[in-house]
Amino acid sequence: MTFADKLRAAQTTTRSRVCVGLDPDPARLPEPLRDQPIAEAILTFNRAIIEVTADVACAYKPNLAFYEALGADGWRVFEETCAAVPDDRLVIADAKRGDIGNTARMYARAFYEGVDADAVTVSPYMGSEAITPFLEMEGRCAIVLIATSNPSGAELQDLIVDGEPVYRHTARLAVEAAADRPGEVGFVVGATRPALLAELRTAYPDVPFLVPGVGAQGGDAAAVVDAAGSGPLLVNSSRGILYASDGDDFAEAARRAAEAMRDALGDPSN
Amino acid sequence: MTFADKLRAAQTTTRSRVCVGLDPDPARLPEPLRDQPIAEAILTFNRAIIEVTADVACAYKPNLAFYEALGADGWRVFEETCAAVPDDRLVIADAKRGDIGNTARMYARAFYEGVDADAVTVSPYMGSEAITPFLEMEGRCAIVLIATSNPSGAELQDLIVDGEPVYRHTARLAVEAAADRPGEVGFVVGATRPALLAELRTAYPDVPFLVPGVGAQGGDAAAVVDAAGSGPLLVNSSRGILYASDGDDFAEAARRAAEAMRDALGDPSN
Repeated sequence: MTFADKLRAAQTTTRSRVCVGLDPDPARLPEPLRDQPIAEAILTFNRAIIEVTADVACAYKPNLAFYEALGADGWRVFEETCAAVPDDRLVIADAKRGDIGNTARMYARAFYEGVDADAVTVSPYMGSEAITPFLEMEGRCAIVLIATSNPSGAELQDLIVDGEPVYRHTARLAVEAAADRPGEVGFVVGATRPALLAELRTAYPDVPFLVPGVGAQGGDAAAVVDAAGSGPLLVNSSRGILYASDGDDFAEAARRAAEAMRDALGDPSN
Repeated sequence: MTFADKLRAAQTTTRSRVCVGLDPDPARLPEPLRDQPIAEAILTFNRAIIEVTADVACAYKPNLAFYEALGADGWRVFEETCAAVPDDRLVIADAKRGDIGNTARMYARAFYEGVDADAVTVSPYMGSEAITPFLEMEGRCAIVLIATSNPSGAELQDLIVDGEPVYRHTARLAVEAAADRPGEVGFVVGATRPALLAELRTAYPDVPFLVPGVGAQGGDAAAVVDAAGSGPLLVNSSRGILYASDGDDFAEAARRAAEAMRDALGDPSN
């Protein structure tokens, strides 16, 4: 099954474009979990979040930094978290790895073989060699940073080269790197600049877009969906879902937040 | 102690600019270690390499991909490997992380607090926010990808913006991000283009340069030293040292390779 097929199936089943970002901050865990050892508490938390949102989210995106900050125990929690995601939902390893060749191939092994992730986020500063090693396993997708919504994203990404911003050059090299694997390279595009999202969608109608920044980071759901048109779209929310409540009702509150986001983003099969 | 001070002291003690890249490839371990479980074999290997090269190398650079490919056990080996480096040598976590804000801060915690690394390599596509979180702990250095020597490095890095290649813009934003922490931002600059190395050195006389690509990747030691002038310089070799022999004499052979490289690079205190 290609990545595009799996994404379509997961979105059809859940009628949802929601990707739940699993960035468990030890300082923000719900109160009822705080007396457990930290790694155990995070695993309990992640499993509860996944279980309660699985029918309204098509994908989960663990952010590696939050696991690595806990050392080897954290890596174990990352593995168990990925294992808790239902097989027909997507796992996106949000790793933003930026290396090449043999090194990138080792990262691909860590994520595709180690935890059976469907996709990995990639930082493209080293060029197409940073992307191609993540395309070598069928059905897996390299999701490349193209135009990010953080304030300093524009410092490099918006520089103008031959009349075009750098992010357009990056998008082109990413798509060219995956020329024989259409649908298995994706773009990370921020939610805060819908015009830019629309511009990239026009140029790349079939590329899956992973859009963070809706909710806590200020992006507007309707504007994102409108700009991304009918092409494949995943919209990530982390804090808005994970920390909807820090009390006993944290799971129910997360579920309600994910459901509200699903509704705001509309049914992808329509 | 600042990063620059620690680097200077390590180089004075060892009279060496050599950084040993610890990229232990399971497929290339010396024959005598191959009957051990893989994580254990790699740790034994790393410890032997560190012990035998410690008086001719000023720094060690574990490449995270090679540890993460082994999962949680690999992270444990990474931790033990960092712990085996003598306190007065540098540990550079070659992670090429490319994220921002709170996420980058979690990576900084993983490397600076988790394994007491002195520096982390950083991919700058997301701009200065990808760098500053690695500058928040005193004495630690963010070593930023500027101009890499891989063939596709030029795809983005050499694009011309306002008459200057992108890598010059990246260098400027890295140095500006560390304006109040001089000596604690470094550059990764490839060995294969000495003219570019010289150009960056002229513009940034005091920035530490980490130069991979000498030896196996084709860079010439004398040309690198000449181009990097009198500014702080670390030259990395991984495969040329690690796999100098795959027999019983692997440690002695690694030692000889590191020593030869130290000699080729010359005494940094001269």
